[in-house]
Amino acid sequence: MVRFYVWISLTIVFLFKAADSNLTPRVRLTEKEVNFRKWGLPGNTVRTELLQGPQGNSLYVGGHGKLLYIKLDTSILPEEVDFPKRGDKKSSVNPTASNNCDYDITTLHIANDSHLLVCGTNGYHPQCHFVNRKPFGSFGESIAAEGIAPFSVTERAPSVYVGNELYAAANSHANGNSLAIRRLGLRSIWPDTNKKEQRYVSMVLSGPREDPVQDRVYTFLVERNSDTRPEADIWTSWVTQVCAADVGGTKSILQKSWTSRLSARLSCGIPEKRMYFNRLVDVAVLKAERWNDSMVYALFNNSWGMSAVCVYTMGDIDRIFTTSKFRGYNDNLPSARPGVCVKESTKLPSEVLRLIKDHPEMESPVEPVRGGGPLMVSHRYYRHIRVDGVTGSDGRRHRVLFLSLESGGVHKVLDHDGEAFIIAELQPFPNKTRILNMLLQSSQRKLYVASSSEVVEVDLKSCQGYGDQCVACVQARDPYCSWDRTQCTSASRNGIQDVEQGNHAVCTNTDGVASPSRSKAQKIFRWSKHYLECPMFSSHAQYVWKHNGADKECVRTEGSCLLLIDSMTPEHDGSYECVSSEGGYSSTVVEYDLETESGAGGLVASPLASACLLLLLALLG
Amino acid sequence: MVRFYVWISLTIVFLFKAADSNLTPRVRLTEKEVNFRKWGLPGNTVRTELLQGPQGNSLYVGGHGKLLYIKLDTSILPEEVDFPKRGDKKSSVNPTASNNCDYDITTLHIANDSHLLVCGTNGYHPQCHFVNRKPFGSFGESIAAEGIAPFSVTERAPSVYVGNELYAAANSHANGNSLAIRRLGLRSIWPDTNKKEQRYVSMVLSGPREDPVQDRVYTFLVERNSDTRPEADIWTSWVTQVCAADVGGTKSILQKSWTSRLSARLSCGIPEKRMYFNRLVDVAVLKAERWNDSMVYALFNNSWGMSAVCVYTMGDIDRIFTTSKFRGYNDNLPSARPGVCVKESTKLPSEVLRLIKDHPEMESPVEPVRGGGPLMVSHRYYRHIRVDGVTGSDGRRHRVLFLSLESGGVHKVLDHDGEAFIIAELQPFPNKTRILNMLLQSSQRKLYVASSSEVVEVDLKSCQGYGDQCVACVQARDPYCSWDRTQCTSASRNGIQDVEQGNHAVCTNTDGVASPSRSKAQKIFRWSKHYLECPMFSSHAQYVWKHNGADKECVRTEGSCLLLIDSMTPEHDGSYECVSSEGGYSSTVVEYDLETESGAGGLVASPLASACLLLLLALLG
Repeated sequence: MVRFYVWISLTIVFLFKAADSNLTPRVRLTEKEVNFRKWGLPGNTVRTELLQGPQGNSLYVGGHGKLLYIKLDTSILPEEVDFPKRGDKKSSVNPTASNNCDYDITTLHIANDSHLLVCGTNGYHPQCHFVNRKPFGSFGESIAAEGIAPFSVTERAPSVYVGNELYAAANSHANGNSLAIRRLGLRSIWPDTNKKEQRYVSMVLSGPREDPVQDRVYTFLVERNSDTRPEADIWTSWVTQVCAADVGGTKSILQKSWTSRLSARLSCGIPEKRMYFNRLVDVAVLKAERWNDSMVYALFNNSWGMSAVCVYTMGDIDRIFTTSKFRGYNDNLPSARPGVCVKESTKLPSEVLRLIKDHPEMESPVEPVRGGGPLMVSHRYYRHIRVDGVTGSDGRRHRVLFLSLESGGVHKVLDHDGEAFIIAELQPFPNKTRILNMLLQSSQRKLYVASSSEVVEVDLKSCQGYGDQCVACVQARDPYCSWDRTQCTSASRNGIQDVEQGNHAVCTNTDGVASPSRSKAQKIFRWSKHYLECPMFSSHAQYVWKHNGADKECVRTEGSCLLLIDSMTPEHDGSYECVSSEGGYSSTVVEYDLETESGAGGLVASPLASACLLLLLALLG
Repeated sequence: MVRFYVWISLTIVFLFKAADSNLTPRVRLTEKEVNFRKWGLPGNTVRTELLQGPQGNSLYVGGHGKLLYIKLDTSILPEEVDFPKRGDKKSSVNPTASNNCDYDITTLHIANDSHLLVCGTNGYHPQCHFVNRKPFGSFGESIAAEGIAPFSVTERAPSVYVGNELYAAANSHANGNSLAIRRLGLRSIWPDTNKKEQRYVSMVLSGPREDPVQDRVYTFLVERNSDTRPEADIWTSWVTQVCAADVGGTKSILQKSWTSRLSARLSCGIPEKRMYFNRLVDVAVLKAERWNDSMVYALFNNSWGMSAVCVYTMGDIDRIFTTSKFRGYNDNLPSARPGVCVKESTKLPSEVLRLIKDHPEMESPVEPVRGGGPLMVSHRYYRHIRVDGVTGSDGRRHRVLFLSLESGGVHKVLDHDGEAFIIAELQPFPNKTRILNMLLQSSQRKLYVASSSEVVEVDLKSCQGYGDQCVACVQARDPYCSWDRTQCTSASRNGIQDVEQGNHAVCTNTDGVASPSRSKAQKIFRWSKHYLECPMFSSHAQYVWKHNGADKECVRTEGSCLLLIDSMTPEHDGSYECVSSEGGYSSTVVEYDLETESGAGGLVASPLASACLLLLLALLG
């Protein structure tokens, strides 16, 4: 019979080249294997803001006209507070917005013990409200949010709350082209907007430092490349610093504006291959005890639909700002180096201010840690990145990334000394869903994934999905998990695990040895079709059927390895073992015994026939 | 049961985005479906040169120390001639070569009616031999081939035979760095070697033109990018012209050197996305009646493991050389434009010669036809390209490409008005094999594919693989094929076909309507496992099982759509149809009828039981 092959198989060769098995999720975990809790979101939001409560036992969710307050350790329904549409319709002239009076929440902060700061689009007149936390919901003071929060629900405008002040990078006019990094509060900074085409991605505090005066706020952004030659990418990625202590310059220069704003290129690529990722998509920071050891995980993509993760340290970024040459400036630097934070920026010498004003670009780029290569390059298109530090059963600290996929999945990735290993693809949603946001609640080891209609809580320490054997638990290399001699469960001090290697040898034979579901011999009628099914647990494992000493190849389906028997004959009698091999360890997944039931067997199958025989014998006897 | 999914499925989402179904081979054709003839090659060659005999009924194959002469329309064994190893071992000093006395054939030309020109490495002392054609094999004159043929078997050195002269682009010294385009013959041209790092890819004659003096030889090459900035690719692609009439310059300047050598960038990419392909891999030319309509199909790749095909016309290339500005030269051009071919190049004014010498680069690049985009961009990594012009059953001329894959497959691609459609993936080799060379014998509609151990003849007009229905034949969109009202066979004037659309409507109901292999009701014993299999002919089609009016999804394996019945019960009784849908046409591929055989049914199945009953009745009666 003529046979063709589906195109998926045709692409394997390429993909094997493109992605080595480490960049293939080892397993896929759905709600069957992992504990997911879900909360529905009112309406259908296009943007979801997530904020965790201080104790990590509560969650604030901002959406379309509503703010939810979820008490995580209870099962009581979330509390809600409404943000009314903007009343005044006359000024709603923006044609692009379908119903442009909506209040879509775009910004969420914990302002202080008593209040949240909640900002939203408010029909292209962005507004912030202080909202009471306990009791939840009553409104406090409200402020206009131009330059603090975005005008449109699709616009990204990162901000951080430091002390009693808000640092924000947003447009100050509905028509755009009014981006700047601003500070709202007692020491408000309101610089002229730069004319560059930029998209702000993320904002973080670089600190706290030994000397608080040196604390900085870093803003990560993409900017249209000034280099317009065809070879050059359309976008470039940057990190910008401003000093927290900065209160602006003198009356004559940079008054009420940053005197410490410097920018440096973020480099991410494989230079020898001239492969560069220039489009920053998202940023996650893994805080360390010492601020300069804190790691910045940056997610990039390129026009080829690929993604890359590059890792930088706060210390490296700081070093560029404090040591690099200033682009386009070759004279000697003033004694007080521009960009170094000072107590009283109003007293800075004008030459320093002028240099900051005229040459805000560093010549040297920030290079990733460890030889400057990406941690991983993938043909998947990731949208969000989060990073967690996990103490494994070995007592060591491990780094785990969470990368959201367009399909609605999340890749759980181990960063082991700069080598990425995709532990699993989590599937919080039953169907293809666009992930709008993710929040990692490290203390509780929970990940919250938001779609337009629900928030799903992923329990990162639910480990039973890896199987009920020590080896399976160890080969998973999941630092959240270890083998407690009875099951694969959340990592504990004396659990068995090998995050570094996933080496099965750490398991002793007594640690739950393979116990395949052996069933007694099945009788299969002669000439009839039959099939044996073997679930494929790991995409990194090889599966094969063994029958009477001979290997039989799998007929692979999405999730299992089949053995098809077109017509049962005695040659098919005997035992069938489905053997999986991974990392030098082989085990029998399932085992069957088949036996051909010949025609005469029909007799046995027929009680009537046997009864008749007995009766006949009786009569004859 | 816990279920995981193999990584292949995890990559589907990305691939669907990356490659629309048109860039997925619709079908896969192996030796089961297509007529392949095979000839073994002596030894294990790392390079295979293919040359077709003048009548297209013979094939010359050059390999490791041997030249084969294959008479295609006979079954007699190929004739062989040996090229002995180089005797003199003393000078074999090159350490890189393992056994560097070998004579590996690198160049094959038909010199004239009586002789072939055969060149080989000859142990790093390249040498050419004139070899008698009939009778085949006896050696004629031999010449040293430095600067004509490569020193190493891995080196590419294209050449063309025009008139009695050989144009070649090769190194003239074993140590490399001695590349140039040279002409051997009565009017030998031996220019100084340029110091640029280049790799010559292909050489073709641009002509014959109305005025023979204007005939040119084009050489296609990649060159290390002089632009060393990180964004710029390492390589750039070029086409270089020299005039066939060129006999060199004056005593004072460019004597014995080209006076007409000009180079222009080959551009291939998607400017708005800044996606460029800069590394030329292979070139194929589709000759047209008028030389300037001839089409140049250029295969490029990039560092991301992707490929692209861009198409240029000879006329467009010519226009750049005859109209573009000269890079770095802004004064008025001399009356005789440099690079325009002249009868007596020795009489060219020195200012023309100097301009050619100092500014051999065109400012404008050669842009692809039709809006300047690639014909196709693929995530597969192609190595060779060939192009054929085929007159379909509609009497129209169609263009078909053949692209070799690293896996040993060949993609047969329709270029329909600049839109690529991958008709099929041909599988000439049973296993993963590296394709070393391809030769298209258009007149015979044959493609010859060479590996290190054999040459396979692919019959391009063997069409039965597309199935035994008009619709299947038409949806294949293969211009070599059409439906002759009884079968899918080589295209004929009044055959039924629709290369443009693949629209099934051109088939009348009488043209072999779907006739699924309907089998009478099968009795399946209750509680037993069973499966139904449906072959998936086309990767562009959707397949589904219909049972009692309900759709059941496929369990997809590599080549078929399965329906698994875990335990047979009466609910499973009834008819099962596997329905495929493609291009708005649905047809039943296979059809089954199942019926549960209950326990009592065993009675019927048991002759013994029935006999007993009869006997019993007789006794009681």
